Amino acid sequence: MKQTKISIAKKLSKFSEHWSPKVIAEMNDYQFKLAKFKDEFTWHKHDDTDEVFLVIEGDMTIEFKDGQVELTSGEMCVVPKGVLHKPSAKNECSVMLIEPRGVINTGEEGELTAPNDVWI
Amino acid sequence: MKQTKISIAKKLSKFSEHWSPKVIAEMNDYQFKLAKFKDEFTWHKHDDTDEVFLVIEGDMTIEFKDGQVELTSGEMCVVPKGVLHKPSAKNECSVMLIEPRGVINTGEEGELTAPNDVWI
Repeated sequence: MKQTKISIAKKLSKFSEHWSPKVIAEMNDYQFKLAKFKDEFTWHKHDDTDEVFLVIEGDMTIEFKDGQVELTSGEMCVVPKGVLHKPSAKNECSVMLIEPRGVINTGEEGELTAPNDVWI
Repeated sequence: MKQTKISIAKKLSKFSEHWSPKVIAEMNDYQFKLAKFKDEFTWHKHDDTDEVFLVIEGDMTIEFKDGQVELTSGEMCVVPKGVLHKPSAKNECSVMLIEPRGVINTGEEGELTAPNDVWI
């Protein structure tokens, strides 16, 4: 049997870098990633896909050009494709990201671009 | 601004039926659904898609023909497409399901088939 359970807490204990999503599961061509956020990320957008942020622990903000969404543990937000957004977190925040395989975290390549397909 | 936050706890408070998934968000052509499980569901499979179970609160079991996975809060499992499975929960368990829009909860139509696209 190939199916196993995946513990979000155990996976979160395996890394400490900020803004560097790690893959924990795949469903069809979509990936479930965990990331730790702290301070401010860069403004970016994903032209080809929506993106889901689900907060596991802590608080974060997603700024948009016309407003912002504040998220805490157990809350989620769908960022529509093509919409500029800037995630940030005053204190460290653990987040699950759900998006298609191959999405670049910064939209276009940049200083904060993290490697893709890093499994933990 | 169209983007809003979605609180899993608030959405869970809006329904009480078992085995009747409710949509809370869409990302591209995928849906995020919440469901409450109690007792045993039916054996079924989804021939065209994987399916993710993410436990929000409580404990559940996914039986497979060659084993089983026990899940508790904060744990998830990817059921591969075409693989027979039977979810169950001794006590009520709240679960997030992630799968493409239009998936029938029982695989094929049957007694326990729930209506699709019911948003809360």
